Amino acid sequence: MIPDEDFIKDDRVPGPTKEEIRCLVLCKADPNGGETVADVGCGTGGFTLEFAKRANRVYAIDKNPQAIKITRENLIKHGLGENVELINDDAEEALKEIGDLDIIVIGGSGGRLSKIIKVGARKLKGHGRIIVTSILLETKIEAIQTFKKLGFEYGIIDVNIARGHPLERGTMMLANNPISIIWGRQR
Amino acid sequence: MIPDEDFIKDDRVPGPTKEEIRCLVLCKADPNGGETVADVGCGTGGFTLEFAKRANRVYAIDKNPQAIKITRENLIKHGLGENVELINDDAEEALKEIGDLDIIVIGGSGGRLSKIIKVGARKLKGHGRIIVTSILLETKIEAIQTFKKLGFEYGIIDVNIARGHPLERGTMMLANNPISIIWGRQR
Amino acid sequence: MIPDEDFIKDDRVPGPTKEEIRCLVLCKADPNGGETVADVGCGTGGFTLEFAKRANRVYAIDKNPQAIKITRENLIKHGLGENVELINDDAEEALKEIGDLDIIVIGGSGGRLSKIIKVGARKLKGHGRIIVTSILLETKIEAIQTFKKLGFEYGIIDVNIARGHPLERGTMMLANNPISIIWGRQR
Amino acid sequence: MIPDEDFIKDDRVPGPTKEEIRCLVLCKADPNGGETVADVGCGTGGFTLEFAKRANRVYAIDKNPQAIKITRENLIKHGLGENVELINDDAEEALKEIGDLDIIVIGGSGGRLSKIIKVGARKLKGHGRIIVTSILLETKIEAIQTFKKLGFEYGIIDVNIARGHPLERGTMMLANNPISIIWGRQR
Ligand SMILES: Nc1ncnc2c1ncn2[C@@H]1O[C@H](CSCC[C@H](N)C(=O)O)[C@@H](O)[C@H]1O
Ligand SMILES: Nc1ncnc2c1ncn2[C@@H]1O[C@H](CSCC[C@H](N)C(=O)O)[C@@H](O)[C@H]1O
Ligand SMILES: Nc1ncnc2c1ncn2[C@@H]1O[C@H](CSCC[C@H](N)C(=O)O)[C@@H](O)[C@H]1O
Ligand SMILES: Nc1ncnc2c1ncn2[C@@H]1O[C@H](CSCC[C@H](N)C(=O)O)[C@@H](O)[C@H]1O
Repeated sequence: MIPDEDFIKDDRVPGPTKEEIRCLVLCKADPNGGETVADVGCGTGGFTLEFAKRANRVYAIDKNPQAIKITRENLIKHGLGENVELINDDAEEALKEIGDLDIIVIGGSGGRLSKIIKVGARKLKGHGRIIVTSILLETKIEAIQTFKKLGFEYGIIDVNIARGHPLERGTMMLANNPISIIWGRQR
Repeated sequence: MIPDEDFIKDDRVPGPTKEEIRCLVLCKADPNGGETVADVGCGTGGFTLEFAKRANRVYAIDKNPQAIKITRENLIKHGLGENVELINDDAEEALKEIGDLDIIVIGGSGGRLSKIIKVGARKLKGHGRIIVTSILLETKIEAIQTFKKLGFEYGIIDVNIARGHPLERGTMMLANNPISIIWGRQR
Repeated sequence: MIPDEDFIKDDRVPGPTKEEIRCLVLCKADPNGGETVADVGCGTGGFTLEFAKRANRVYAIDKNPQAIKITRENLIKHGLGENVELINDDAEEALKEIGDLDIIVIGGSGGRLSKIIKVGARKLKGHGRIIVTSILLETKIEAIQTFKKLGFEYGIIDVNIARGHPLERGTMMLANNPISIIWGRQR
Repeated sequence: MIPDEDFIKDDRVPGPTKEEIRCLVLCKADPNGGETVADVGCGTGGFTLEFAKRANRVYAIDKNPQAIKITRENLIKHGLGENVELINDDAEEALKEIGDLDIIVIGGSGGRLSKIIKVGARKLKGHGRIIVTSILLETKIEAIQTFKKLGFEYGIIDVNIARGHPLERGTMMLANNPISIIWGRQR
């Protein structure tokens, strides 16, 4: 995994998603190298870089041009990117133009989550899967209800991780904000 | 409970301990109004103010003069303090001079936890109890081992609480750092 | 607080709500002794017994006759109950017949949460408050949205607590299931 | 990742370590395919099977013969095992006989953690790393103190994960017990 601090940061762009969450999303997505992946809301490039190393093709989508710029810089910094297409567009528009997908990761949806899942679901091949990371209570429910309506197999985990910070007097545990990972798999 | 934001703050002094933790410590201490309490490491006054309202007498002890000053200001702000004695001294020294105690809360120990528990234990009446809040891994173990050596009944809970923060798009959960509450009761 | 194991249990009735959660709900409710309280979905009596000791009057409501029976047994076991009225009825019906309330705790709603909050809200005096404990994702959102519609001040905390279990080799932390506490206060 | 329920279980053997923890340990270990790995305390085979698929060689060590038996059955069930050597012995003994190692995972130590780490450290090549999963408070500290003494780079995360369980009325979150992951890397 690429440690959080190895990403170039830009204050106008959220991310990278914390290393442990990127790790858990990767385990759920379980790429074996041949997949086509869409990273919806690529932000700083946390998921894009990890999937660039583990899948065949990655579409990195973000409506914020700063996010596209910073994701490109991070790809270059880590010698990645020849299998990545950066799309500065709204997720629903971008997803309509892309071909078939095996994995869709949704790290941001700007209140359009259920629309984005539906548009994305139409592009999924075979047992394609969609994985949503959510810090908002409301998006968790929206993801679950949308997967239910689509007849997907789905699941959710709430993740609370604290990292040890060594002080002179001892080890202080600092909490990462809780994040939910919701996944849906086409039957 | 006094909300966190109703405490006057001073950057040189940690605290107040978060409301939820003060609440859980109060439930463990279970004061009925007649007790004598020592708040070791009173910091900003989080525990001192809550016990001033619920116990007979409170000794607020801190080696940092700024902590004593800010705790006094917070007592005055909330119309409390006539049953509180502020002691600007090291915990072990201060505890030696105080009479019998029913409840000792230890919010800070500066690496001297097991000594402080032992000195304090000698002052406990009947089923007196000591409650430690700890953000360091090492102090958790030190508290448990010290209570074991003293033959106290003891227990520990790890507390991870996230608070909902209303955003325009939804409710974001923000984590408080994990804290452990360790209590020991004289048999 | 009454420890969990001091409650008489009946397999057909959930509860008692864990001690730490009862404690946090009490701190939010903040009874000073003069209040009239409704415990909606009293189950095994976890909240009813704590409020019986701290408020003026308690209505303990449950549609399950077993819950009413076990709550009565627990009241008697702890020498409580003369200020408690047990109502074996559906929450909405029971709340309609009760007079003014200061505090409503909702520990169970059987999918009728927003209706129950609305009926209860009509009975609230002055700065009355409603506190919901929820183990279901969906009820958390329902509570927040209902408090928003009623123009209440509201808040939510997610609580993850693990209790230390002493083994011969060391202290094993056992997790309680995560619970959310959502409160709404009439402006 | 192999789901928990795809492992053959034996009541006399703990494990498998939950999927999410196996995932996080894999991310920390970061095998690229060429490593020699030791799974100390292989139990039901949770780590052995995952590393069998991702590393060059795996030594699965457990002092409990039932653990060796059940790990072998799980390897066979998943068509794995030709690069795995099963050793029914005490960890310190087994580690002395093995050649160089890149990764050591310690899922069980029976109170011998710091000895096991020291014996294992002597077998580590270059930037070898040791990863400990611990459910006991005391082993967390022991791991950190031992890595400090050995001059390793080290870190710790506390992991609290709850899994959504779909009920007819909604999604109930069920907590996994908190586990710590402590890693040390030879400088
Ligand atoms: N409807 C939408 N279409 C495209 N991008 C969107 C969107 N809604 C939100 N976003 C983008 O989603 C991103 C969320 S931040 C994601 C961080 C990323 N996972 C990382 O590891 O770096 C933001 O950059 C935001 O611009
Ligand atoms: N050995 C010792 N004797 C006295 N005070 C000590 C001490 N070790 C640490 N402290 C004090 O312990 C405090 C910890 S901060 C405690 C915050 C407090 N519970 C609140 O709610 O505001 C610090 O102010 C520190 O000065
Ligand atoms: N609409 C409704 N009206 C009345 N009771 C209800 C209800 N929906 C659920 N309940 C009751 O809510 C209870 C939830 S269990 C609550 C446990 C309780 N807090 C304790 O500490 O013991 C159940 O007994 C269930 O019968
Ligand atoms: N000193 C020691 N030497 C060898 N095995 C040990 C040991 N101390 C504990 N163990 C073994 O460590 C195991 C811990 S259970 C580990 C579960 C495993 N990670 C899984 O995923 O299945 C037990 O089977 C126990 O027998």
